[in-house]
Amino acid sequence: MSGNSAGLLFRVTTWGESHGPALGVVVDGCPPGLALNLDAVQAELDRRRPGQSRLTTQRQEADQVEVLSGVFEGRTTGTPISLLIRNADQRSRDYSGVAELYRPGHADFTYDARFGHRDHRGGGRSSARETAARVAAAAIARQWLAARFGVQVLAWVDRVADCTAAPVDEATLTHEAVDAHPARGPDPASSEAMAQVIEAARKAGDTVGGTVRGLARGLPAGWGAPVFDRLEADIGKHCLSLPACKGVEFGSGFAGTYARGSTHNDAFAPGPQGPVPTTNNAGGTLGGISTGAPLTVRCAFKPVSTHFQPQQTVTAAGQAVTFQNKGRHDPCVLPRAVPLVEAAILLPLMDHALRTLALGR
Amino acid sequence: MSGNSAGLLFRVTTWGESHGPALGVVVDGCPPGLALNLDAVQAELDRRRPGQSRLTTQRQEADQVEVLSGVFEGRTTGTPISLLIRNADQRSRDYSGVAELYRPGHADFTYDARFGHRDHRGGGRSSARETAARVAAAAIARQWLAARFGVQVLAWVDRVADCTAAPVDEATLTHEAVDAHPARGPDPASSEAMAQVIEAARKAGDTVGGTVRGLARGLPAGWGAPVFDRLEADIGKHCLSLPACKGVEFGSGFAGTYARGSTHNDAFAPGPQGPVPTTNNAGGTLGGISTGAPLTVRCAFKPVSTHFQPQQTVTAAGQAVTFQNKGRHDPCVLPRAVPLVEAAILLPLMDHALRTLALGR
Amino acid sequence: MSGNSAGLLFRVTTWGESHGPALGVVVDGCPPGLALNLDAVQAELDRRRPGQSRLTTQRQEADQVEVLSGVFEGRTTGTPISLLIRNADQRSRDYSGVAELYRPGHADFTYDARFGHRDHRGGGRSSARETAARVAAAAIARQWLAARFGVQVLAWVDRVADCTAAPVDEATLTHEAVDAHPARGPDPASSEAMAQVIEAARKAGDTVGGTVRGLARGLPAGWGAPVFDRLEADIGKHCLSLPACKGVEFGSGFAGTYARGSTHNDAFAPGPQGPVPTTNNAGGTLGGISTGAPLTVRCAFKPVSTHFQPQQTVTAAGQAVTFQNKGRHDPCVLPRAVPLVEAAILLPLMDHALRTLALGR
Amino acid sequence: MSGNSAGLLFRVTTWGESHGPALGVVVDGCPPGLALNLDAVQAELDRRRPGQSRLTTQRQEADQVEVLSGVFEGRTTGTPISLLIRNADQRSRDYSGVAELYRPGHADFTYDARFGHRDHRGGGRSSARETAARVAAAAIARQWLAARFGVQVLAWVDRVADCTAAPVDEATLTHEAVDAHPARGPDPASSEAMAQVIEAARKAGDTVGGTVRGLARGLPAGWGAPVFDRLEADIGKHCLSLPACKGVEFGSGFAGTYARGSTHNDAFAPGPQGPVPTTNNAGGTLGGISTGAPLTVRCAFKPVSTHFQPQQTVTAAGQAVTFQNKGRHDPCVLPRAVPLVEAAILLPLMDHALRTLALGR
Repeated sequence: MSGNSAGLLFRVTTWGESHGPALGVVVDGCPPGLALNLDAVQAELDRRRPGQSRLTTQRQEADQVEVLSGVFEGRTTGTPISLLIRNADQRSRDYSGVAELYRPGHADFTYDARFGHRDHRGGGRSSARETAARVAAAAIARQWLAARFGVQVLAWVDRVADCTAAPVDEATLTHEAVDAHPARGPDPASSEAMAQVIEAARKAGDTVGGTVRGLARGLPAGWGAPVFDRLEADIGKHCLSLPACKGVEFGSGFAGTYARGSTHNDAFAPGPQGPVPTTNNAGGTLGGISTGAPLTVRCAFKPVSTHFQPQQTVTAAGQAVTFQNKGRHDPCVLPRAVPLVEAAILLPLMDHALRTLALGR
Repeated sequence: MSGNSAGLLFRVTTWGESHGPALGVVVDGCPPGLALNLDAVQAELDRRRPGQSRLTTQRQEADQVEVLSGVFEGRTTGTPISLLIRNADQRSRDYSGVAELYRPGHADFTYDARFGHRDHRGGGRSSARETAARVAAAAIARQWLAARFGVQVLAWVDRVADCTAAPVDEATLTHEAVDAHPARGPDPASSEAMAQVIEAARKAGDTVGGTVRGLARGLPAGWGAPVFDRLEADIGKHCLSLPACKGVEFGSGFAGTYARGSTHNDAFAPGPQGPVPTTNNAGGTLGGISTGAPLTVRCAFKPVSTHFQPQQTVTAAGQAVTFQNKGRHDPCVLPRAVPLVEAAILLPLMDHALRTLALGR
Repeated sequence: MSGNSAGLLFRVTTWGESHGPALGVVVDGCPPGLALNLDAVQAELDRRRPGQSRLTTQRQEADQVEVLSGVFEGRTTGTPISLLIRNADQRSRDYSGVAELYRPGHADFTYDARFGHRDHRGGGRSSARETAARVAAAAIARQWLAARFGVQVLAWVDRVADCTAAPVDEATLTHEAVDAHPARGPDPASSEAMAQVIEAARKAGDTVGGTVRGLARGLPAGWGAPVFDRLEADIGKHCLSLPACKGVEFGSGFAGTYARGSTHNDAFAPGPQGPVPTTNNAGGTLGGISTGAPLTVRCAFKPVSTHFQPQQTVTAAGQAVTFQNKGRHDPCVLPRAVPLVEAAILLPLMDHALRTLALGR
Repeated sequence: MSGNSAGLLFRVTTWGESHGPALGVVVDGCPPGLALNLDAVQAELDRRRPGQSRLTTQRQEADQVEVLSGVFEGRTTGTPISLLIRNADQRSRDYSGVAELYRPGHADFTYDARFGHRDHRGGGRSSARETAARVAAAAIARQWLAARFGVQVLAWVDRVADCTAAPVDEATLTHEAVDAHPARGPDPASSEAMAQVIEAARKAGDTVGGTVRGLARGLPAGWGAPVFDRLEADIGKHCLSLPACKGVEFGSGFAGTYARGSTHNDAFAPGPQGPVPTTNNAGGTLGGISTGAPLTVRCAFKPVSTHFQPQQTVTAAGQAVTFQNKGRHDPCVLPRAVPLVEAAILLPLMDHALRTLALGR
């Protein structure tokens, strides 16, 4: 009810605060018999964790995942998979100053408004650390979707502030190419240009935002649902539930609204297994159901709220104060958001895969 | 499971095809004791129905709503409210030609891919006619939210193709001002300019898209949820589940990703009932929970797929064919999408209002 | 939220009051392609409706079902199936006397305690008339379960007050044998004996209760779930949600609690497709999952609350009064409860069938 | 989807196998601000754990609960509460013999039929050890229900095999009285008589079943829901989801089906806050909604399946074998089932309490 679960059939429930003993996720509904590669799950967490490159905060968190249930002799049993990640550093000293005031751009005030009592240490439940649990769960979905249907999901940074990545061949782009540079653009030159924007922001004590583009390849036609649970509605919801994500678009998105219907519609051509769209303005769905073309999404991430300029705000007691952050923080969330956007695609895709099986066709 | 329901506590289930005998919605979870104004429900349907102005299709559908349950002596009883809308014209002849081919931009192919057997008449379940049911349900939510919390939700067309509406004073804009012109821009001049773009497209046998902006005013601080069910995630999902909607953004949205954190964060100032954001780049939420500032959203609607140019497509038997639409269709969905976007805000807001009550604070 | 829906994948939502214009059900999640026999759906409703025999109330309600959506050219489309049943007689005069007092054994007081405002006519939403909607939905489940898996579900009256039916051969009992007599015992002699108990109660202005036994045959092994959604938990919940049902037991049930483990356990013997229980004290499940043996359940129905003796009660204004029913009412709900118990088995079984498909094995 | 969660607003998700590293539960939806007494949570687990008395298995499991999230400075925050219980003894040697055969009365075969791959060690997910997680979650519900509404829930053993406890004054019975004797009858003499039945079974290498009676006192009128989620349906489902529970009844239950309506109906008398039932055959509900009278339930537990007599069964390879248990096992589950039945009442009651708040009355 408090919104910590997602999915109808592949149901994930995350829990944990950034400075409690641990955080984790319970994955209920993973089919039995999947040979789970735990190293691959850990590798996904390593892509998300801080301290991994010169572009991210230097806080070091190991984010070591433990499997507590649901896997026996290397294979999933069909029962809940409980994954736990210890919080290496639970010291709250860095946050002692912020307990009594409401940081602009953060959820301090709104949590108080809702709950009356909050764990203020490091953002508590509102910390982006919560997304580690989603990434771990999504790593399971990734393995099952690949093994069962050959579906591939990948994302990359396509813009940082006003620095846009070069065009991408979506049919051939690889995870390796994206991860080759810490900025996670689609190619080395784009990545380096975006990295320089990020580093300039850091030097200025400021932060930047941008967009991440995501892709699902190998999707069969016929996944999705007609009305409220359209594929883009479910994926869009997951994207918009990521910290700092303020917008999402599919296919031609906002740009496509400037086009005419006569040029925007994707014509169909005969294919070996049915009609194939000859263009992909629709972004892989029609009527909320996959066409078999790649599903494409773009997410907007606002500039990081934790910058180092003085800010006007209010204390819990209602007094106006000037506030300034200290400590170590990412000047840009985009590179680390890449696995989050992949998770936001993988989790609902897995759910819809199982829902399609339940049709019994 | 087939995705025809939405909401946890204010739960709506829509049903019906465009050419069946009727369509409708069951609203489960409306609190008892609401004095339901049925004329106001009907008025919302009238805002959505075709044939209401020179800018919309000339098909005439009365869209007369009947209340079959859940209301006694003018007040809701707390039991399910069943609303039914008869389909005035069930004749299928206009669609006989499209039964055997897959129209580009429509869900004909994807429904077949998913279900194997579809009601092809007028799009069947994929018809935008389904949204009448949502508008009817949202009209109930609107009355309860206004009566209980003074919340107001309104939307307007803020761009058609490349014709953008004038800036809007979001604090004072009224439904009456929006509805004063059939184009439903925020002011007469903007509306007329957009109307001319729409009529030019119609004359060219083509269609246009654009954006609708929506707003919730009077929202208390503290509505929403931390993780998957963030307020913008739930509202965004509803928006993306609307036919032809390909993108959604909150607050500064995509434009805000070009800003720096130091200028993007909304400072807090002391207010009579707690901190008040002095700007609203966040669009009314922080960490997925309302701040008390207006919630603002923008939805991208692709150009209408039913245009009158020849199109290449494929038959169900796999043969390439050239296809051309005939009949009466809207050249632009935007004016009629205004009540849909309002519904996409009202339904999840009502759900979150009840979830907030369940906190027992 | 108000509890008018059931099922995860085969999801039914009922609506309607006994004296409103109609009642109905939306069935979401029925797989596409089922050739739906509407006469068979109507026949199930005819088995439930009043006035069908000398043992039931002589009120005449046609309970004619209309299909408003989800079926095209005789086959289900996978979209919601909306079923509507008009209330033939909406006159409220018979109930005018009861608007202001709380009938013992009825939900008049508890609805007021919960909702503050209730439709008092004929029990409103608490009327057993609501079960017509369930029976209609279950008739769809019955057809799919039979066509796809060969599952058969049947029930019969096995006791009225202290008159117990003769032992039954559960492997061969048929619907026809049960329906051959209006008392719906398993054989003519038992039925006639129970009918006499019912008629004696009627003559005395009193009412009787008893038990209904239900059975699912042809169930594959492996349906169900380990923890909260055990097969008997889900079926038991449906049974206990029937009006007047105050108890439910599976297999040996309460009687089995007098046995020793050494005699109660069902031994396994080798069978053509795996182990087969040689007895069935477990009632067809182990650990909440079907064994392949028949699933057996017994439901306890209290004596009908509407009898014709004077009763002490209280008005809405808090005054003690003596109350006496008039009008036409069943002296015993058991024969008409037979299709209800079948529905209480069919609906969750269908849901679990789809959940099993979603395992993807 | 795999049925490891329960509740709409107070939602618990259990995970873990008996011989994995740990088991636990995530509680989502506990209102913020509850001063959580962890010692009281631990005390509930101690009531359930094995090895606590001469009547239970001598396996020693500490069942020490850890709180990993959702509690800050001693009070709940409204975010998920993750509770973890380490499995002290993960050695699988005792179960090596049973990996290849299907024990009668156990879920070995049905798990294989459903999942194809199971953790056979100690029953894995089907082990009654899973109920420790429910008891821990219910201990939180108990504290909130008591603090907010003064609701008290208690249970006791009312029959072991054919040894029935003395009549009970349900208005005054206390936890202390029940826990005073390891057999957990309502009074010392009943408890001792039942203990002797249990010990005689143990000496005979056999097992016994019986019934547990449960009670909720102090329940306000108006909790529950009209149709599928009747209070007794939700509580009954929880009861039937307990291992070895094969039946459940409310109020007069099965015995009441022998009565006449004229004696069974509970008359109402005027009370200070509305009508009060003068008897309680209904067991505290009418139409699925609480009357304010105590809610009473009885659960049937079959004799423990693990006895020490030779049994006929089948191997996974399909061969008939004779099987005999060894090791340490409870001869009777009843005393340890007392906290389980309390949990089966507390969890749905808490959920319905929050649903009632969401009505906004």
